Amino acid sequence: MSTTITTGAELERLKRADTVPEVHELIRSRWSPRAFSSREVPPQVLKTILEAARWAASSYNEQPWRFLVATKSDPAAFSKFLDLLVPANQSWVKNAPVLIIMAAKKTFSHNGSQNRFGFHDAGQALAHLALQATAMGLHTHAMAGFDHQRARTELGIPDDFDVAAAVALGYVGSPDDLTEHQRQMELSKRTRKPLNEIVFGASWNAPLPL
Amino acid sequence: MSTTITTGAELERLKRADTVPEVHELIRSRWSPRAFSSREVPPQVLKTILEAARWAASSYNEQPWRFLVATKSDPAAFSKFLDLLVPANQSWVKNAPVLIIMAAKKTFSHNGSQNRFGFHDAGQALAHLALQATAMGLHTHAMAGFDHQRARTELGIPDDFDVAAAVALGYVGSPDDLTEHQRQMELSKRTRKPLNEIVFGASWNAPLPL
Repeated sequence: MSTTITTGAELERLKRADTVPEVHELIRSRWSPRAFSSREVPPQVLKTILEAARWAASSYNEQPWRFLVATKSDPAAFSKFLDLLVPANQSWVKNAPVLIIMAAKKTFSHNGSQNRFGFHDAGQALAHLALQATAMGLHTHAMAGFDHQRARTELGIPDDFDVAAAVALGYVGSPDDLTEHQRQMELSKRTRKPLNEIVFGASWNAPLPL
Repeated sequence: MSTTITTGAELERLKRADTVPEVHELIRSRWSPRAFSSREVPPQVLKTILEAARWAASSYNEQPWRFLVATKSDPAAFSKFLDLLVPANQSWVKNAPVLIIMAAKKTFSHNGSQNRFGFHDAGQALAHLALQATAMGLHTHAMAGFDHQRARTELGIPDDFDVAAAVALGYVGSPDDLTEHQRQMELSKRTRKPLNEIVFGASWNAPLPL
């Protein structure tokens, strides 16, 4: 059956989370495509997606997240970012219209002490960004697979910031534009561990009666 | 004006993010109260909120997040968790009906190598949890302020996991139940850095034309 799936809309149906209907539609519908369309992201849409990330929660409201953004409308900038990725990621990210590299501040601005949750809270901001993208008909695919040290150097990320995730952003495209291996991954259902493997009661591995 | 705000519904209006209307209602409406009502969270609601966290994105789909959960329906478990918090947090968390302590796996299960994004992806799961709670009329307040080492020992969190955030979960209560200092914070508008301080172009501090 999966071999007949060739459009973005068909993919969206396949990728909807297999969960209870009470899980919010945004959360059900978020997934991480490899098949991106070349369709440009209007600046106002990009701005709103970043604005949603701005409203994430953070320890002491530090807002440790930073977003470096390259769009295809600036080919030199996009090439600079794309070149940082591992080849396996480059092969599909090259079709996406926007590429973001995130950074997370390591210290608190109010007193200079270490912020243990800088990286963690960048993750919260990324989730906001991904869900707002979903709300506007786009998708994101976050990646760890890039040269963090070279990103730091070439993008000028200061020592006081960790290099966090790289994120492809855009509209879903056709899986037929992928390699066969990527296409197989794209056409598989999303899977997660059962809830009782990640949720415990008041001590590790104790069941929570739900 | 703020002194007239005494109900949860009034607080919700005050706390709505001051942003463009295109930012999704869930993201606008999520905030971190200190004033929790004692109203219990039905098990099915709690389960759905955790289910939403389950569907977050993670590096290699590792799903590094774990949730240890204590509810007021088990007073011994709730006391055990509450006792881990710093006193300033205990003073308001004691009113909340659910207290969660998260952990994040440090390594990849597929090959045992270090997962640089374990803590980060626990942040993504926390954002899902918080937004699903918002969708169901509840709120969360995540905290770094607790004894991580004692949490590890008393809850039996294995060495291969980082202790991540503690999270109070429940329905919003009245700010009049807070101390005066807490009440002032509760009655203040939410603030964030301007977008141009957190979003750059293709190099650090370069403006992104949006």
